[in-house]
Amino acid sequence: EEKFGTSFISSILNVWEFCKEDTNRVIFSLKVGLAVLLVSLLILCQSPYRVFGTNIIWSILTVAIMFEYTVGATFNRGFNRALGSLLAGIIAISIAELALKTGRIAEPIIIGFSIFIVGAITSFMKLWPSLVPYEYGFRVILFTYCLIIVSGYRMGNPIRTAMDRLYSIAIGAIVAVVVNVLICPIWAGEQLHKELVNNFSSVADALEECVGKYLVDDGSEHSEFTKTVMDDFPEEPAYRKCRSTLNSSAKLESLANSAKWEPPHGRFRHFFYPWTEYVKVGAVLRYCTYEVMALHGVLHSEIQAPYNLRIAFRNEIREVSTDAAEAIRRLGKDIRNMQRTLKISVLKKVHTSTEKLQRAMDMYSYLLTSSANHEPPHKQPLSHALSSDLDKKLPEQNHDPPLLLQEEYSYHETMRKQSKRLYSWPSREVDAFEEGGLGFSSTDCMPRMKTLETTATLSVATFTSLLVEFVARLDHLVEAVDELSKMAKFKQEDV
Amino acid sequence: EEKFGTSFISSILNVWEFCKEDTNRVIFSLKVGLAVLLVSLLILCQSPYRVFGTNIIWSILTVAIMFEYTVGATFNRGFNRALGSLLAGIIAISIAELALKTGRIAEPIIIGFSIFIVGAITSFMKLWPSLVPYEYGFRVILFTYCLIIVSGYRMGNPIRTAMDRLYSIAIGAIVAVVVNVLICPIWAGEQLHKELVNNFSSVADALEECVGKYLVDDGSEHSEFTKTVMDDFPEEPAYRKCRSTLNSSAKLESLANSAKWEPPHGRFRHFFYPWTEYVKVGAVLRYCTYEVMALHGVLHSEIQAPYNLRIAFRNEIREVSTDAAEAIRRLGKDIRNMQRTLKISVLKKVHTSTEKLQRAMDMYSYLLTSSANHEPPHKQPLSHALSSDLDKKLPEQNHDPPLLLQEEYSYHETMRKQSKRLYSWPSREVDAFEEGGLGFSSTDCMPRMKTLETTATLSVATFTSLLVEFVARLDHLVEAVDELSKMAKFKQEDV
Repeated sequence: EEKFGTSFISSILNVWEFCKEDTNRVIFSLKVGLAVLLVSLLILCQSPYRVFGTNIIWSILTVAIMFEYTVGATFNRGFNRALGSLLAGIIAISIAELALKTGRIAEPIIIGFSIFIVGAITSFMKLWPSLVPYEYGFRVILFTYCLIIVSGYRMGNPIRTAMDRLYSIAIGAIVAVVVNVLICPIWAGEQLHKELVNNFSSVADALEECVGKYLVDDGSEHSEFTKTVMDDFPEEPAYRKCRSTLNSSAKLESLANSAKWEPPHGRFRHFFYPWTEYVKVGAVLRYCTYEVMALHGVLHSEIQAPYNLRIAFRNEIREVSTDAAEAIRRLGKDIRNMQRTLKISVLKKVHTSTEKLQRAMDMYSYLLTSSANHEPPHKQPLSHALSSDLDKKLPEQNHDPPLLLQEEYSYHETMRKQSKRLYSWPSREVDAFEEGGLGFSSTDCMPRMKTLETTATLSVATFTSLLVEFVARLDHLVEAVDELSKMAKFKQEDV
Repeated sequence: EEKFGTSFISSILNVWEFCKEDTNRVIFSLKVGLAVLLVSLLILCQSPYRVFGTNIIWSILTVAIMFEYTVGATFNRGFNRALGSLLAGIIAISIAELALKTGRIAEPIIIGFSIFIVGAITSFMKLWPSLVPYEYGFRVILFTYCLIIVSGYRMGNPIRTAMDRLYSIAIGAIVAVVVNVLICPIWAGEQLHKELVNNFSSVADALEECVGKYLVDDGSEHSEFTKTVMDDFPEEPAYRKCRSTLNSSAKLESLANSAKWEPPHGRFRHFFYPWTEYVKVGAVLRYCTYEVMALHGVLHSEIQAPYNLRIAFRNEIREVSTDAAEAIRRLGKDIRNMQRTLKISVLKKVHTSTEKLQRAMDMYSYLLTSSANHEPPHKQPLSHALSSDLDKKLPEQNHDPPLLLQEEYSYHETMRKQSKRLYSWPSREVDAFEEGGLGFSSTDCMPRMKTLETTATLSVATFTSLLVEFVARLDHLVEAVDELSKMAKFKQEDV
């Protein structure tokens, strides 16, 4: 019983956390309660009930169906409902009039046939790709049509029935909209703004986390693949958050769609605020995110570069990732504060550190070729010349690669440790290969191992290339954000 | 007027195409029409109407709201609706009984308060992440509760009202289910099966398309970035299809959720068919797709390897991609035909060609280092030894790299052509950099260009690494498919 008590307390705490995380949730719930209460009062009290009659029940249904989280979505849904009801009403009345004229026997046949046609057409139209967002509207048309025409047939005077129903639906819609807009409104625009800003910071976090893991991970512990894919990399929270930005396109679009329905509000004070521009920035940001995903792919690759080689370029890689993350955060901050700042200095910093990384890769690229470990690289003089050139300009930079060279190729040591892992690929058919009829005898083993070494070594090149590409895409992100700031008239700020 | 005529005809053709693409759409529409017609007959005909009364209108509402595309989704929605109505009915009756006992004055207050509470609680619960799929159920609870308690208050005898309403809802539900199941049923399981198979072939197509483009594209034409991102690469249909597989996780999951509600049917003849396993295979396939996305990223990268270098490994790259695509298609075919075949031979072929590619990379890795173009690679003997070794084993293979060498480094020629493109990165701040106060004088220009060259050259290594990684992940895909075949008891086939 005590156990039950603690689990009860912990679930209460969960709910509390959930509320605290976003108080809008509580506000929304209370607003729904209030809206249905207000509509119910129309029936519970004697006097309005006498005016409107039993049809007032439709207002309750309307409120329950129409009340959405954000103001824009409520407007949008209300529009769907209103237009749907209106269309259904018009069709129903015309068909009913037509049917009445045909006489007692033909009437039910015409009505039945029309119900079938309306059902089939609305269902077909809501499957049409460009009409999918209005799915709800088609449902409304269908059932409103059926209700009006059938009850009109049974209770006589279809126009009266249709009108009464439209009135009560209108009352429900008005109550829903008034409560939604006047009491602590939750604006879709505001949500969209926040969502985009969050996406920026989650991409920056994921980049840093991924690069950090790449430089720390010594490749010894590596949880089983399928499990990791299924559990979504539990030990990488930033990556998971970032991955959700990849799926956020639908969310951003639906928020932008809702936001278009909203009047100017809060910080978004002018008409025709460029909400679609938010979606565009989101798309460009997602394009950057693909690079982070690719980096993450290298991090969890089957074929890993030896740890030594990875940390050889540690300082440069870390600098680029830190600067790039910084730039992304800066962009996100500018959007959050709705200000335009000069991003040149930030971009310059990223470009400088990227160039440093490229120089380092250039200088020590011989490390990446297979023969590097067997013979001392004779291009040392050239690299050295470059190196001293660089040293002159970037004196604060302590070069790791020489350290690597000092370590007298403990590279092979690492290789030995890693060999098990390397040989886990190709994980399934190694034996079949070795003994197989493909003409590879065991004498091939040595070159084969060397080949795998090259592939492994080149994975560092892959990692840095992807990082450089990320920086290259950053430029486009800056452009997209600039475009947004211009169109949304963010205030210019001189830094 | 003629123009209108042709556009009318073309839209008719569009609709026709849309129907032909998937005849289930037409069937679904006609089924909805039939279902509403059947329910309406209950009212249109005299005798059932006399039995059920006006409440029969609720059956129409139920059909219109409950009728879903697949059998499983209809069951699921029906379950939501039934449970929601039942819960709402129970709560409403208990509250109404309680309110009745408190007397005339307290009654409306208690009812009003209870409506507020139910509205707030259901709205809050549907925001809770694990309850989001049951959103519809909570809506049903809310409006059923309001309807029953309010009309019970006004019309007396809430139990009678609740019962009548539940009857008519049940009739609607039964009609919807019977029509949906008995007339050309559209099974969610079948859809899921097809969807997964399609995903396999679209990934294979995208891989081949991407690699094909990489080897053909000479880097001259490159449409503007932002436009391309926005238009979703219009000239790459396979890529677009493949990208949709990345977003298909939600679709697969909802189909699997629906499929769980379905009885054994068609080719899926045993109970507890492992639908969730389909979702898992989909996840592993998506994990492979990330690599295709990364390859696509390299293809559209700002920093491109010179064409010469890319086609240097053309045969090897093409072979790997063809074999990998073949393997994926084979897996897809096995799932489609619900058979288990030995995939060892296919996998072996992929691994052999991958190894060839790795060997080629290993042999000619000196091409990737910056100094390769300035001095004749002195490791030629070693590579040569390996090369002849390889030639012995793979005589059918004509090596491109020597061709590259013969061409007397037309590399620099290409480089010159590409220089504009290379310098478009960093696209924004080049001038600021050159003249900027960061200490880079114009004398830096030469090493800087060399640095960019290295980065560009290494992008080939990136491309091949990603391809090799794709093959590595293929193993896991084979395992996942094997697991599925076992659990779904696909028939063993000896090839």
